[in-house]
Amino acid sequence: MKTQVAIIGAGPSGLLLGQLLSRQGIDNVILERKSGEYVLSRIRAGVLEQGMVDLLREAGVDARMNEEGLPHDGVELAFDNRRVRIDLAGLTGGKTVMVYGQTEVTRDLMEARAAGGGTTIYEADNVQPHDLETDAPYVTFEKDGETVRLDCDYVAGCDGFHGVSRQSIPKDRIKEFEKIYPFGWLGLLADTPPVSDELIYARHERGFALCSMRSPTRSRYYVQVPLDEKVEDWSDERFWAELKRRLPEEVAAKLVTGPALEKSIAPLRSFVVEPMQYGRLFLVGDAAHIVPPTGAKGLNLAASDVNTLYRLMVKVYQEGRTDLIPNYSQTCLKRIWKAERFSWWMTSLLHKFSDEEDFETRMQQAELDYLTSSEAGLKTIAENYVGLPYESLE
Amino acid sequence: MKTQVAIIGAGPSGLLLGQLLSRQGIDNVILERKSGEYVLSRIRAGVLEQGMVDLLREAGVDARMNEEGLPHDGVELAFDNRRVRIDLAGLTGGKTVMVYGQTEVTRDLMEARAAGGGTTIYEADNVQPHDLETDAPYVTFEKDGETVRLDCDYVAGCDGFHGVSRQSIPKDRIKEFEKIYPFGWLGLLADTPPVSDELIYARHERGFALCSMRSPTRSRYYVQVPLDEKVEDWSDERFWAELKRRLPEEVAAKLVTGPALEKSIAPLRSFVVEPMQYGRLFLVGDAAHIVPPTGAKGLNLAASDVNTLYRLMVKVYQEGRTDLIPNYSQTCLKRIWKAERFSWWMTSLLHKFSDEEDFETRMQQAELDYLTSSEAGLKTIAENYVGLPYESLE
Repeated sequence: MKTQVAIIGAGPSGLLLGQLLSRQGIDNVILERKSGEYVLSRIRAGVLEQGMVDLLREAGVDARMNEEGLPHDGVELAFDNRRVRIDLAGLTGGKTVMVYGQTEVTRDLMEARAAGGGTTIYEADNVQPHDLETDAPYVTFEKDGETVRLDCDYVAGCDGFHGVSRQSIPKDRIKEFEKIYPFGWLGLLADTPPVSDELIYARHERGFALCSMRSPTRSRYYVQVPLDEKVEDWSDERFWAELKRRLPEEVAAKLVTGPALEKSIAPLRSFVVEPMQYGRLFLVGDAAHIVPPTGAKGLNLAASDVNTLYRLMVKVYQEGRTDLIPNYSQTCLKRIWKAERFSWWMTSLLHKFSDEEDFETRMQQAELDYLTSSEAGLKTIAENYVGLPYESLE
Repeated sequence: MKTQVAIIGAGPSGLLLGQLLSRQGIDNVILERKSGEYVLSRIRAGVLEQGMVDLLREAGVDARMNEEGLPHDGVELAFDNRRVRIDLAGLTGGKTVMVYGQTEVTRDLMEARAAGGGTTIYEADNVQPHDLETDAPYVTFEKDGETVRLDCDYVAGCDGFHGVSRQSIPKDRIKEFEKIYPFGWLGLLADTPPVSDELIYARHERGFALCSMRSPTRSRYYVQVPLDEKVEDWSDERFWAELKRRLPEEVAAKLVTGPALEKSIAPLRSFVVEPMQYGRLFLVGDAAHIVPPTGAKGLNLAASDVNTLYRLMVKVYQEGRTDLIPNYSQTCLKRIWKAERFSWWMTSLLHKFSDEEDFETRMQQAELDYLTSSEAGLKTIAENYVGLPYESLE
């Protein structure tokens, strides 16, 4: 087999990159270890920045999002039993975010790819990139018991944190940066109406809580839990009771509970690898970086990497601008590090780190007190939340 | 002896409070453990917020400051061999700071007190407040071998971090919050022209550096050093060489060196006690809170406490508003915690915490990168640096 860009991973990054490249006539093949159903079963993020919404529109996969997505022009911070609204649109000159589940984005992209006749090979075992430092890289994989070789010009590693792409880079050619947080998020998905039209990020002495949603009838809630907590110990009742305790009274009073469709605990991690490229391999999204979910940046960062790689490939194939290739990593990282900072900062601001009221606790309180009483402070939150501008390759 | 307000400590807080009270006809006596010459020999801060400048004007001690003080409408951040100016005035609607040494402020206040006939008892040994929880507190001290009793209505504890005032409060009535930083500042004072008209706060991989000044002919420079460093190991030559390494090249090239008038190492500490009052004792300034010097908030916070206590005393003596007395601590703390946050944050942003480039290093870089590319980000620095508004007692 032969293609121009071999894409490893059929999550939203790989599919979006494939869709954008195909529309520009750049041939690509996507290899995915799992089945399509499995990919769609993963419950993930649901807040899209304006930049990602624009990119989905450019990819021509915006029809259902336009119909069903929920534009949000504000989010709330809750603390000390009070609520402060962050007027995203008002503070950023009209920018907003779109609530539309990652699962829905993925489904739309899968359908568009199927309709356009793009090649996606699901259940491709033992995917392995080769000769990345040469002009003729290739990827091998096993399908139905046979080993297949896919020759290509470039490889896009869209296969997530645990994927083979980053692991294909010699250890001495990259540097990893990591921070592990001493807690996780216990999430619950339910077919109940969201408690509020907008997301509520709550700081409480018992720990962080988040009220989110997927649609007008489907809610997603989270509570901070210790890392050693087991999901089996959390009955639905216990979850709802704990969530209510952490919300302002007027919010808790309105909360509609119901049976959990899904319940799981996720650890929180910050991770970045530098650089994000090696020869003809480009890392995209979670393969190169992880953010804690506070601030909803994970999927959006993947989209901004896709944007950068897509524009690079267009320059390469349509204008012969191979001189821009070395710029990929630094272009991505400039924006990634700022989003990593925002996610780390918002995590640090809103979570409980200590059992006693100490200096750090007071710093959190003072920061919330300052930020919510300062127009400039509110603006720094808003402009990061809606997403900083995409960086240019040149 | 008898007075209305007994003030412990003749540093700038005690003297400023005494001056303001005297002008309103409120009788006060200041007790100071050291001599006047000793107090004047302490080398301290030199950047006054607008609020403190206004308060000195209200106290009628602004003549020499108006003449010799240097109004600054900007400060610089230096990092990655580049310089970013923070336009304080432009970003805050015209607010500025005034460079005028704490020693000069103290001298002006001493002279004003002498001229007004206010009582200051220097070299008062063994100062001790008594019966603070009663309606008739008093302070005893020894002077020239005799024990003297000073009866009063209220006691103002302006005697700094190591003073007797805070120590007079039973341990179970207060809570202390503290953070110790793993480094100190080595400072050097020299009669050389400052390298720049404005202060330069520099982040460098070798550690933080600050270019400050006291006058057009007197410079004050600092470099971050490990806590176990000894000042004897730092010749003037070594200091100047280290400072130059940490500054942008174009700044280092202009640096004029000279013999040190003074050289010392100070540790960095954040400290706050809650509450700041106990019966008829009010803690003011360093007696209740310490900030690391990054951001120049120490003296200014003392001034804002003085402002609060002064206005409280005026309300009490002129309007009989003793109902406001319980508000003193919370009024002060609201502003103090925000300034503690700013000082902690600026310290965290600009100092070297680790020998290797780790996640936290990248967070510092990303934060500088974000802040200096965002109008809102620059504004948050500027509005904190010039000083947040004074809080009201009611």
